[in-house]
Amino acid sequence: MKRLIFPILLIAAIQAFAAGPAEGTTASTNIPEAAYPCVSSDSKATFRIHAPEAKDVKVDICGKKYDMTKNENGVWSATTDPLVEGFHYYFLIVDGVSVIDPASETFYGCGKEASGIEIPEDPETAAYYTFNKNVPHGQVRECKYYSDTEGRQRRCFVYTPAEYETNHNAKYPVLYLQHGMGENETGWSKQGMMANILDNAIAAGKAVPMIIVMDNGNCDYIFGAKKGEDMAAFGAGFTPVLLNDLIPYIENTFRVKTDRENRAMAGLSWGGKETFDITLANLDKFSHIGSFSGALFFLHGGLENAYGGVFKDPKAFNDKVKVLFLSMGSEENFGAPDISKALTDAGISNIYYESPGTHHEWLTWRRSLNEFIPLLFR
Amino acid sequence: MKRLIFPILLIAAIQAFAAGPAEGTTASTNIPEAAYPCVSSDSKATFRIHAPEAKDVKVDICGKKYDMTKNENGVWSATTDPLVEGFHYYFLIVDGVSVIDPASETFYGCGKEASGIEIPEDPETAAYYTFNKNVPHGQVRECKYYSDTEGRQRRCFVYTPAEYETNHNAKYPVLYLQHGMGENETGWSKQGMMANILDNAIAAGKAVPMIIVMDNGNCDYIFGAKKGEDMAAFGAGFTPVLLNDLIPYIENTFRVKTDRENRAMAGLSWGGKETFDITLANLDKFSHIGSFSGALFFLHGGLENAYGGVFKDPKAFNDKVKVLFLSMGSEENFGAPDISKALTDAGISNIYYESPGTHHEWLTWRRSLNEFIPLLFR
Repeated sequence: MKRLIFPILLIAAIQAFAAGPAEGTTASTNIPEAAYPCVSSDSKATFRIHAPEAKDVKVDICGKKYDMTKNENGVWSATTDPLVEGFHYYFLIVDGVSVIDPASETFYGCGKEASGIEIPEDPETAAYYTFNKNVPHGQVRECKYYSDTEGRQRRCFVYTPAEYETNHNAKYPVLYLQHGMGENETGWSKQGMMANILDNAIAAGKAVPMIIVMDNGNCDYIFGAKKGEDMAAFGAGFTPVLLNDLIPYIENTFRVKTDRENRAMAGLSWGGKETFDITLANLDKFSHIGSFSGALFFLHGGLENAYGGVFKDPKAFNDKVKVLFLSMGSEENFGAPDISKALTDAGISNIYYESPGTHHEWLTWRRSLNEFIPLLFR
Repeated sequence: MKRLIFPILLIAAIQAFAAGPAEGTTASTNIPEAAYPCVSSDSKATFRIHAPEAKDVKVDICGKKYDMTKNENGVWSATTDPLVEGFHYYFLIVDGVSVIDPASETFYGCGKEASGIEIPEDPETAAYYTFNKNVPHGQVRECKYYSDTEGRQRRCFVYTPAEYETNHNAKYPVLYLQHGMGENETGWSKQGMMANILDNAIAAGKAVPMIIVMDNGNCDYIFGAKKGEDMAAFGAGFTPVLLNDLIPYIENTFRVKTDRENRAMAGLSWGGKETFDITLANLDKFSHIGSFSGALFFLHGGLENAYGGVFKDPKAFNDKVKVLFLSMGSEENFGAPDISKALTDAGISNIYYESPGTHHEWLTWRRSLNEFIPLLFR
């Protein structure tokens, strides 16, 4: 059977795009040639999709479902309320089925591939996570390695600073940086703009050149998908992978410093919980700890009993842990200020950062990373 | 406003997955926890989606649309005919709208993000593109650079062989490797399994250690999307980017050999056309040329007139071009055997490879790459 696939693809392309002048600026998260979604100057997003046979289409973004309306050409559209700046996952709901907008790039979140839209901030405010052609750029390397713990291939991403390419004798400190529940190892470099944040901070002398390792925290599906799983243990499978497979792989492959003073870990949301679980049980291996909107519930059991009693001796803890960093968006409910206060009251040194105006979303975590990295390895 | 997003995500997760025992093996291209699609031992794929309110759902794969049928729980399913082994893009059609299957990872193709499914081959046959824990692994680096030609940031991916990390004085030859129309710079390392192919071939001594650069060929949307564009010029914007921005960036950033004998270019489909357009006009810069299912129509104008008459003097051409490689799947209609024969008849040395049983799809191109790289830089 001989056949030419171009005509089929052509039809798909014409169906996919609902072209026309944008009511605002085309979103940076769109695929090439997609005029919609676009964002107005007052941060309202307009979505469009060509779906002449559909009976009901909605856009589902920032916790709200907006009904879309159909025009005479079968193009559905909706404009949202003003949205908080930064990155948001979203879905279209076509006759009850939640699907990715064909006009969007995809971002792994919500336990699957999702559409995403960037609501632009003021360029000056956004400069720290924006590509700057005038600073040296690091690289994000996709690395595959074999995990003896799991008996299978795994993948991590490794940011190396620009000078790593030329400074062949230097060794670098390492930050292990985790995504949240329902996300995976791609999140920090896509949604998180991690490389731009590091490039800019290192070039400005605000952060020391470091290596950042992003692996899958074994919590990349949403709980509920595995019935009967113990919530407290969710993601715990990552601990032996990190300690026994990943750290040795990184230290055998990259020019890194291997002492505890030069090893940090941080994570967002469920990755913050994993960070506390792993680092506080292994303070011989980690000296800098960050939890961004961490899913931390240990106050319920009393601070004294938490993490094997690690907080019982504040002086010993403060001597060992160079940085204990907690953060949260001002508009979310993840308890970081209460935890910070309880720790402070108990004599545990810690730093709390609150991201103004943001929710449990990536702008909170971009800002948190940008606040955290200047504190590391000093 | 304070809110917790977990409950919303939980509902989305439950809606997204239609769990149950798989009729065959879960596809390797699925997201974690998705049991469907699955593939039977005779290469039939079964797809499922929970869509109780939808009126009509189809799966669109390998040029055929299969009607799905709904059960009493609102789960639609369909099983295909036996499919050719290898990777296939596919879409679900929900009440007339072509969407990505929520159970699939996404792959950029068809001018947008697409679902994809891997139909497994016999493991021995597939060994050359399969991760092997017993060979050293290279890395695929995401690199951002500024293009003066376009006045904007661009992205390329760069494969470095395993020994690049330790062999600090060695310099490596470079292959520039292009995707096809409607695809982008991610294609070769995702759908193409490029890193596994190189790791395995280098470890076996079948290919010399080399660097592979994969950039966007400026043809990542399907023609028709830009009305009135001249087909022959489609993607031509990549030529000055490659010559004036990308090659200098690579040669300034990586330890590479910079003479024409150590610079190759190859591409699939439209990337094959771009490869011929660029290399044959710049034989002072390229010595090895590959076209995998290339969109090459130059025979229509006569071989003598093609590419500025570069084929008029076979001896001069053969002295300059170390490898001219053409390939195609046996089941597609891209004219490579006719071109190879015409070139041979005119005295132009070339190599033709035909992939048995495959169409205009990635298995053709994985095999083509595996046949091409042993010929390079000898």
